[in-house]
Amino acid sequence: MPDTARRIVLASRPVGEPNPSDFRLEEFPVPAPGAGEVLLRTLWLSLDPYMRGRMSDAPSYAAPVGIGEVMEAGTVNEVAASNNDKFAKGDIVLGRAGWQTHAISNGSGLRKLDPKLAPVSTALGVLGMPGMTAYAGLLEIGQPKAGETVVISAASGAVGSVVGQIAKIKGSRAVGIAGGPDKCRYVKDELGFDDCVDHRAPDFAEKLKAVCPKGIDVYFENVSGPVWDAVFPLLNTFARIPVCGLIANYSSTEWPDMKYKTSQIFRAILTKRLTIRGFIVTDFAARHADFLRDVSAWIKEGRIKYREDIAEGIENAPAAFMGLLKGKNFGKQLVRVGT
Amino acid sequence: MPDTARRIVLASRPVGEPNPSDFRLEEFPVPAPGAGEVLLRTLWLSLDPYMRGRMSDAPSYAAPVGIGEVMEAGTVNEVAASNNDKFAKGDIVLGRAGWQTHAISNGSGLRKLDPKLAPVSTALGVLGMPGMTAYAGLLEIGQPKAGETVVISAASGAVGSVVGQIAKIKGSRAVGIAGGPDKCRYVKDELGFDDCVDHRAPDFAEKLKAVCPKGIDVYFENVSGPVWDAVFPLLNTFARIPVCGLIANYSSTEWPDMKYKTSQIFRAILTKRLTIRGFIVTDFAARHADFLRDVSAWIKEGRIKYREDIAEGIENAPAAFMGLLKGKNFGKQLVRVGT
Repeated sequence: MPDTARRIVLASRPVGEPNPSDFRLEEFPVPAPGAGEVLLRTLWLSLDPYMRGRMSDAPSYAAPVGIGEVMEAGTVNEVAASNNDKFAKGDIVLGRAGWQTHAISNGSGLRKLDPKLAPVSTALGVLGMPGMTAYAGLLEIGQPKAGETVVISAASGAVGSVVGQIAKIKGSRAVGIAGGPDKCRYVKDELGFDDCVDHRAPDFAEKLKAVCPKGIDVYFENVSGPVWDAVFPLLNTFARIPVCGLIANYSSTEWPDMKYKTSQIFRAILTKRLTIRGFIVTDFAARHADFLRDVSAWIKEGRIKYREDIAEGIENAPAAFMGLLKGKNFGKQLVRVGT
Repeated sequence: MPDTARRIVLASRPVGEPNPSDFRLEEFPVPAPGAGEVLLRTLWLSLDPYMRGRMSDAPSYAAPVGIGEVMEAGTVNEVAASNNDKFAKGDIVLGRAGWQTHAISNGSGLRKLDPKLAPVSTALGVLGMPGMTAYAGLLEIGQPKAGETVVISAASGAVGSVVGQIAKIKGSRAVGIAGGPDKCRYVKDELGFDDCVDHRAPDFAEKLKAVCPKGIDVYFENVSGPVWDAVFPLLNTFARIPVCGLIANYSSTEWPDMKYKTSQIFRAILTKRLTIRGFIVTDFAARHADFLRDVSAWIKEGRIKYREDIAEGIENAPAAFMGLLKGKNFGKQLVRVGT
C-alpha cells in the first residue's frame, strides 16, 4: 500500500463557472484507522451537478464545503484496513469519502456492495443516487400515466436517462431533450425514448412542439433556462413538474432572466392547475427498497440501460466536473480513482 | 307574479377594470317552463372573483360568457312553477341561473336545499363553492399540520375566512392578510385567526415577517402581486402553496411584473422543495360529501363563523362585482334578488 494519499480540496469559491484554480490537489499521509474505524481506499468517485451548490455559500438545502476542505462526493471504496467488527479488509462499500484516494470512517453510513450482483460502479449511478432521484421524482411527483407525454431534460444524463426509461415502462410517451445529435441518437436509439430533441438546434422550440402533438403532461426539470421557455407553453392542464435541477443556472453569478415572467407562470399554474414541486432524493428515502427492487429487475430484464463516462485518476476530477456542468459528459460521470 | 323579468348581460369585454358600460340591464318576459322544465325565481345571486375570467376571452379553464349573454353565477332559487316530477312549486334549490331574476331549467344540476338546516344563502358561501374551495384547497394541497404556520390572503373573504378557521381547527397557527384595519380586526377578533396583517400598511412586509416568527409552511394564494412578494422570502422548506386565485391581476391588461423573477422562484422551488399547485373547486368534487359533513358540524359547534355582504336588487350586481374586485366587500358578496 502506498503511504501517500491524494485529495482535491476547494481552494476558492467559484464565481460563475468553476475553473482549475478553484481546486487544489494535495498529498497527505495515508491515515491510520483508530478504534472502531476503517480505512477506505477509493475505487470510484461520483461527480454530480449538485456539487456546484456545495461550492457556493448561498443558502441551500445543505451546508457548503469549506475553503480548504475536501470536496464531498459519493464513492465506492475498498476496506483497506478495519478495526470495525462490521467490516472486513477487502469489503467493497458505498460511502461518501469525497474527492480523495483514502479516508477514515467509523462505519456509519457505509453500505456493503455485492460485486456479483452488479458492477459496483452502478451503486453511484443507475442503482445509486441518480437512479433513485429519477425513480422517486418521476413516480412520486410526476405520476405518469399510460398514454401521457413525459418530457425529460438532460435526457442522456445519469438521472434523465432513467426517468425516460421508467416513463416508457409506465406506458407513457417519453421525449428527451439533450445537447447535440450524438446524445439525441443515443437517447432515442439505445435508450428507447420515443423521440429526442437537440436543445442546441436553432429551431429547438418548434421541434419540441412537433414531437409533443398532445402537449406535455409531465416535465422532469433538470436544467431550467431556454429549455423551460420552450416547454412551458406546451404544458397541459394538470401537468406535473418535478423540479430536480436547474443546471443551466448553476454557474451564473446572476441567474438570467427567463422568457416567461413570474406573473405568467402563476397565471398558468392557476388556469392549467399545474403542480410544480422541488425535491431532493433524500425526501423520498422511504422508497429506497422499492427502487432497488424495481430498477434491479428492470436492468436484468434489459428494460433499463445505462452508460458511464469515466475519467481516470483523482487529479482529473476537477476537469471532469467542469465538463459535467457544460454537458460534456455522455452518461453518468465517474472518476476511476483506484482499481 | 310580475310578468317582466330582468337580467344583466355582458355588453362588452372589459379592458382592465370592468366598468358599468360593460354590463347592460335588460327586461324580458318571464319565460314559461316547457315539458320537464321548471321556472326558477332567483332569491340569492353569488358574486365571485372567478367571474372576471369569464368576461375575458383569454385561454382559461372555462369558456367565456359571450357578448350579449347573461352573466354566469351560482344562485339560490325558488321553484316558481314546475313541469318536472322531481321539483315542486315552492322548493328552494341551488342552481346556476346567472345574473337574472328568472330562468328556465330542466332540473339538471339543481340541488334542493332545506331552509331548516341553515340559511339558504350559505349554500353560496360557507356551505357552497367558496367553502368547498377553502376546504379542499387547504386540506388536499396545503395539508396543514399542528404547529405549522398557515398564511391566508384575502382572509376576510368567502374563501380565506374559511381557510383560516379550518387551519385553526387542524392545530395550525393562522395568519391572515386583509385590506384595512376593520377587516383585520374582524379576522382576528371574530374569526379567531392568531393574527392578521393589513396589506395596505406601508410596512406590510416587515409586519408579516414579525407575525410569522417560524416562517410560513402553507400559503393559501388568493391574490398574487405585492402580497406574494412579501410572502415568498418567508416560505419554509417543504412549504405548500395552493394557488386558488390571483385577484390582484384579474383586471390588469398586462399582468404586472413581480419583484421576484422566474429564475428566483425556481431556485426556491428546488432549494426549499416547495410545492406550488393551482386548482379549482371541481378538481376535488370527490370530497364534497366530506366537506358538507365537516363544515356543517363546525358551524354548529361555533368553530366556523361567516359574514355576508349583501347588495340589494339585480340592478346593483355590476357595482357590487366591481367593488368585489377591489376588495370593497366585507365577507361573502351576495345580491338579494328576490324574497
